[in-house]
Amino acid sequence: MSSCIILFSGGLDSATTLYLAIQKGYQPYALTLDYGQLHRREIRSARFIAKPLGIAHEILKIQMPWKGSALLDKTQTLPKKRSLRQMSRNIPSTYVPARNTIFLSLGLSWAEARGAESVWIGANALDFSGYPDCRGDYLRAMQKVFRLGTRRGREGRSIRIEAPLIHKTKAQIIRLATKLGVPLDKTWSCYKGGKQPCGVCDSCLLREKGMKEAGL
Amino acid sequence: MSSCIILFSGGLDSATTLYLAIQKGYQPYALTLDYGQLHRREIRSARFIAKPLGIAHEILKIQMPWKGSALLDKTQTLPKKRSLRQMSRNIPSTYVPARNTIFLSLGLSWAEARGAESVWIGANALDFSGYPDCRGDYLRAMQKVFRLGTRRGREGRSIRIEAPLIHKTKAQIIRLATKLGVPLDKTWSCYKGGKQPCGVCDSCLLREKGMKEAGL
Repeated sequence: MSSCIILFSGGLDSATTLYLAIQKGYQPYALTLDYGQLHRREIRSARFIAKPLGIAHEILKIQMPWKGSALLDKTQTLPKKRSLRQMSRNIPSTYVPARNTIFLSLGLSWAEARGAESVWIGANALDFSGYPDCRGDYLRAMQKVFRLGTRRGREGRSIRIEAPLIHKTKAQIIRLATKLGVPLDKTWSCYKGGKQPCGVCDSCLLREKGMKEAGL
Repeated sequence: MSSCIILFSGGLDSATTLYLAIQKGYQPYALTLDYGQLHRREIRSARFIAKPLGIAHEILKIQMPWKGSALLDKTQTLPKKRSLRQMSRNIPSTYVPARNTIFLSLGLSWAEARGAESVWIGANALDFSGYPDCRGDYLRAMQKVFRLGTRRGREGRSIRIEAPLIHKTKAQIIRLATKLGVPLDKTWSCYKGGKQPCGVCDSCLLREKGMKEAGL
């Protein structure tokens, strides 16, 4: 049985990615980063979703004292009621400098140490907030780093990056999630992270739009 | 005054890189990773060297519970008395999965959050232990990740990777260090990390060879 690392934030996309890897027969190792995000609710969601699956799940603390993101710094404003056009054109204040590069690097490290075949990421470049590190060209560059920067990549078969949602709309992801039995109600998308989703941040708007289009 | 991040382990190469950046007029931010390395002595060295310079210095704790290296796992054997030829051909047990990728990612994050111009790494591909993530082709792949994976790289001028020692021999690095006033006696190279360097690991052998060739 091949194993893989799943970068698992506790949101809709990463939960769907996790369930997809399981459905495809992989033994998943789920990796969650606690990087000081203000919406700590997503870490709780990650724990809730992973636990009943009985899979290996690491929640790693990473210090990012330099902040540089509205997700790390209360004094910065969250994006509100942006149109899809605005989302696709402007990187919002919720962008966390190099987050996916850090996340993928740690996933790569775990994959190499444990002999896992691939690292799975729920990145999505269609209905998304315009983040630079969710796009296909970025992931291809990172794939080269996986090959050249590791023992495995130099001596044998490189650890692969799998981004199965990259070309899917949010509605398609939600339909897939429903088919796979992902507990949608347990996933957390909102950038705010109170008791109820705020309903106006990019993440809430994309989720809502996807739910509507998927007929849920 | 331009600022830059220095990946600063506390060893000879990274200390020389730090002093070089200062000499070139940069305001340096030094970044040290505490990733559970058994030779914790190098973290103390990093602190000793950075303190009198009065520079910003972050020592970040990173958990790598998966280990996968003799530097993280006491049960693995350190390489002993390898020839230069062996070093250039075989990646040793001291290789830490994806360490430089993790290190560079965190440096990139800090650089972007603080508006620094570049990230400096003391990687050296001549007198080295054969690590995949110290080579030029790897650093070029990582440079592309710096460009595509950040707001800065997409919207403006990319954060650069500077590896000024990459083509230098250990003797050349030591001569440069001496010229720059690096406190060589405070740097720590040995993979073991007791009170005295072991004298037989790759790192000790390379340092000794360099010292001899530099006439010290």
